[in-house]
Amino acid sequence: MGSDDSPVLTLSGRLADRDSWTAADWCPIEEALRLVGTKSAIVLLREACYGARRFDDLVRGAGLTEQIAATRLKQLVAGGLMTKEPYREPGQRTRYEYVLTASGRALLPVLLSLIEFGKSLQGNGGTVDIVHDGCGAHVLPQVRCEAGHEIPLGTAVVRSKRRRS
Amino acid sequence: MGSDDSPVLTLSGRLADRDSWTAADWCPIEEALRLVGTKSAIVLLREACYGARRFDDLVRGAGLTEQIAATRLKQLVAGGLMTKEPYREPGQRTRYEYVLTASGRALLPVLLSLIEFGKSLQGNGGTVDIVHDGCGAHVLPQVRCEAGHEIPLGTAVVRSKRRRS
Repeated sequence: MGSDDSPVLTLSGRLADRDSWTAADWCPIEEALRLVGTKSAIVLLREACYGARRFDDLVRGAGLTEQIAATRLKQLVAGGLMTKEPYREPGQRTRYEYVLTASGRALLPVLLSLIEFGKSLQGNGGTVDIVHDGCGAHVLPQVRCEAGHEIPLGTAVVRSKRRRS
Repeated sequence: MGSDDSPVLTLSGRLADRDSWTAADWCPIEEALRLVGTKSAIVLLREACYGARRFDDLVRGAGLTEQIAATRLKQLVAGGLMTKEPYREPGQRTRYEYVLTASGRALLPVLLSLIEFGKSLQGNGGTVDIVHDGCGAHVLPQVRCEAGHEIPLGTAVVRSKRRRS
């Protein structure tokens, strides 16, 4: 456990001199936030993860105006997180459903960690549980390395892949 | 692995009827987004995780205007994610540093999963690696249950804690 004075994330190599670069150029967080850096994008993707596909369902679940939802869905489709698929009810014109792509489904760890973070803000363990359908145990977004070690705060190191440093 | 047609998150019990409730009332994601639902909040918290504490450093690293940064930092302090701590350089007036609280540090899994998601958008494995300082293995935000099982998409179940259902 890092002390309260140590950084939560350690920058290494050429990233260590924080004044020599700006995150906007390369940071994956900036890249992610270009697509999901608004509350409306996140809540629409949450609804999609709950299985909503039709515009009216997405709008109602997300609690957005139709106008904001339409704009945001267009951006999510353009960004490759959703696709539009045609469907047709008998006697109706062709309409479109919004379906998560593999790229959109890759957002699940973000949503789950937002749920856990939100629960920590709610106190008393929060209002919902997320459990594993298989065994009933709580689902936790965990920070581990590929070798299986838990990562205490302060022991995750960010290093650039562009050049050796 | 759920098929492309199955929901990524399964709603159970009284949550299963998606039309009978609105997320705004209870959803931990909404709670989280009230504090960190803007790009500017996330990038300020990223800078804080990298060890920035002084206003000028936070502003420069986050790439925000001073006005937006000041507004957002005030909200983050009010929301309990940061505290203001006085410091004083020789011959200067007292100034304040912004220090992450335990609640703010709990955002790390969100930031790490945003980094992974951003890397997936960047292609070619992204521009940075996050590695465990102890063993050098890659850090991955993983979705596991407390029993240690990996959670394939579609097998995480959201259930309400407020009442039995």
